[in-house]
Amino acid sequence: MSANESNRFLAACRRVKVDRPPVWVMRQAGRYLPEYREIRAKAGDFLTMCYTPEIAAEVTLQPIRRFGLDAAIIFSDILTPLVPMGIDLEFTPTPQIHNPVRSPEDLQRLTIPEPWQGTEFLSEALERVRANLDPKTALIGFCGAPWTLATYLVEGCSSKSFTKVKQLALSHPEAFDQLVDRLADAMAAYLREQVAHGAQAVQIFDSWAGALSAVDARRWALRPARRLLEALDDLDVPRIYFAHGGSHLLHDLPDMPCEVIALDWRADLARASRVLDGKAVQGNLDPGTLMGPNEEIERRTRAMLEIAPRTGYIANLGHGITPDVPVEAMETFVRTVQEFKYE
Amino acid sequence: MSANESNRFLAACRRVKVDRPPVWVMRQAGRYLPEYREIRAKAGDFLTMCYTPEIAAEVTLQPIRRFGLDAAIIFSDILTPLVPMGIDLEFTPTPQIHNPVRSPEDLQRLTIPEPWQGTEFLSEALERVRANLDPKTALIGFCGAPWTLATYLVEGCSSKSFTKVKQLALSHPEAFDQLVDRLADAMAAYLREQVAHGAQAVQIFDSWAGALSAVDARRWALRPARRLLEALDDLDVPRIYFAHGGSHLLHDLPDMPCEVIALDWRADLARASRVLDGKAVQGNLDPGTLMGPNEEIERRTRAMLEIAPRTGYIANLGHGITPDVPVEAMETFVRTVQEFKYE
Repeated sequence: MSANESNRFLAACRRVKVDRPPVWVMRQAGRYLPEYREIRAKAGDFLTMCYTPEIAAEVTLQPIRRFGLDAAIIFSDILTPLVPMGIDLEFTPTPQIHNPVRSPEDLQRLTIPEPWQGTEFLSEALERVRANLDPKTALIGFCGAPWTLATYLVEGCSSKSFTKVKQLALSHPEAFDQLVDRLADAMAAYLREQVAHGAQAVQIFDSWAGALSAVDARRWALRPARRLLEALDDLDVPRIYFAHGGSHLLHDLPDMPCEVIALDWRADLARASRVLDGKAVQGNLDPGTLMGPNEEIERRTRAMLEIAPRTGYIANLGHGITPDVPVEAMETFVRTVQEFKYE
Repeated sequence: MSANESNRFLAACRRVKVDRPPVWVMRQAGRYLPEYREIRAKAGDFLTMCYTPEIAAEVTLQPIRRFGLDAAIIFSDILTPLVPMGIDLEFTPTPQIHNPVRSPEDLQRLTIPEPWQGTEFLSEALERVRANLDPKTALIGFCGAPWTLATYLVEGCSSKSFTKVKQLALSHPEAFDQLVDRLADAMAAYLREQVAHGAQAVQIFDSWAGALSAVDARRWALRPARRLLEALDDLDVPRIYFAHGGSHLLHDLPDMPCEVIALDWRADLARASRVLDGKAVQGNLDPGTLMGPNEEIERRTRAMLEIAPRTGYIANLGHGITPDVPVEAMETFVRTVQEFKYE
């Protein structure tokens, strides 16, 4: 059985030759899909969807059925594993943390369950998805990167200027190192649990890496992300690191202990692939492209595929698909990749 | 009279040797200042402050009196010049445009007053500031860059994903070129008016340049910004271009027809200065630094000044100062620059 027949996505992560680029899309189980909106309307709120394995599994599978994607990413939220660590989380509908970490003392109440527990709902959802997934389709687990999780933990909500988290990091740098290290260790345990229940690859989302200067990112984002990735060294699963807004960090990324670097749409795919030689790359069409006419989506997708490396490349958007994208636009994007053949 | 004695800021823009880096701060007339908050509470709303020359002039001068900065930037908002172009603008308190541009037809109602008029409040504010400013202190005028203004015009408000503006640009690329060109021409007329009334330098804020891939930024952000900058060629005022979030555009910036490139805090100042050799650079301390302890602000400010070029450098933050910054932190930043001496 060739790599293409077994699992195109996992092969590309390992830089094994495939017949065409594998394709999946960040936030592919999302509000742009009418079948997702229908389930969401019934479930009521977002956290209930995450916490109910039947629902999480069903919405994970929806885009696979519709588009025949090469990988499914488990439906969840980066903040749910903070709850077993002692965090009081609510979505209203944006995330609110009612007991944010604002001082070195607050850090003490952030504990790591040993062994990891409290996310059994996700383990069950992973198993349900895996049981219903063709072996050709990979199942991706994920978590937030330590820095990105720290921004929510300290700010207590989504932030634009990140002043509270920077205040804590600058005022108590050693305590802040401990905070991101603890998050790295917790997320490593959490991802191991995901792998034990069926995840075949993991993606670490550093959604707010772009909020830091390169110097600060090295200490507070890349260093703990490296700690997290290294803790998975013994597992035989490809690791994907995604530093959104990280154009200024490109030259630091070749050293990350992971198999795949996901690029946002600001990155020049050809240049980034050269810099990242030795790693697989994933991305990076502007999600805004899917708001354009179908011919333009096709043209831009093909242009991306033409400049992408021939081995070790996974087609994706450069960020999550947005709720206002027409289903037909997603279809056009996916079909254009699926029709592309390597010589 | 030496350059230092006449105007340190204007000298540095021209890459003339000065005794120490000039310093000013984006959004220095802002909510972190108690005297600003007092005036704002009396004025009621933000647009009233912009439209009342006495108030706009007074808040422009407040940080100059308190900190002895080398440049004052006129208090205004990038959206106010859209009103004479036919736009119905309100702040609630975030900006709302009640008649957004959503189609090529909508573009027709976006007109440029000839000669430019409708911002007399700003002209009067500039004259009032200039009359009260020491000749050693420069007065900076400003406007939004065409792409950044287009995001507000099309989205109708602040956006996170910019899907409506990208939809218009992708669906009607020629009309969108016309839109940004028209904005470039309007802003050129608007800045000429500012210079006629006392502005001695101009800064173009491309606050959302980071929303575009490099390819799209070249067409929809950098090209019209160049058109705007070129239209000011005959004026003897330094032009500053600020592409916030533009780390991926650094290699395109040496070609911009301006004297100064403002850098955000993600840019590596030493490397960017080498790439931009021939231009003055401005920036780029992370505004979040001002949330830290005073010793850390001093240490980081000095580190920045040490790696900055010796000529053609203007100290500033890498983005606007945030409302939660303590006044003492701003004092520490400014004093650290003022005490730094070039050998």
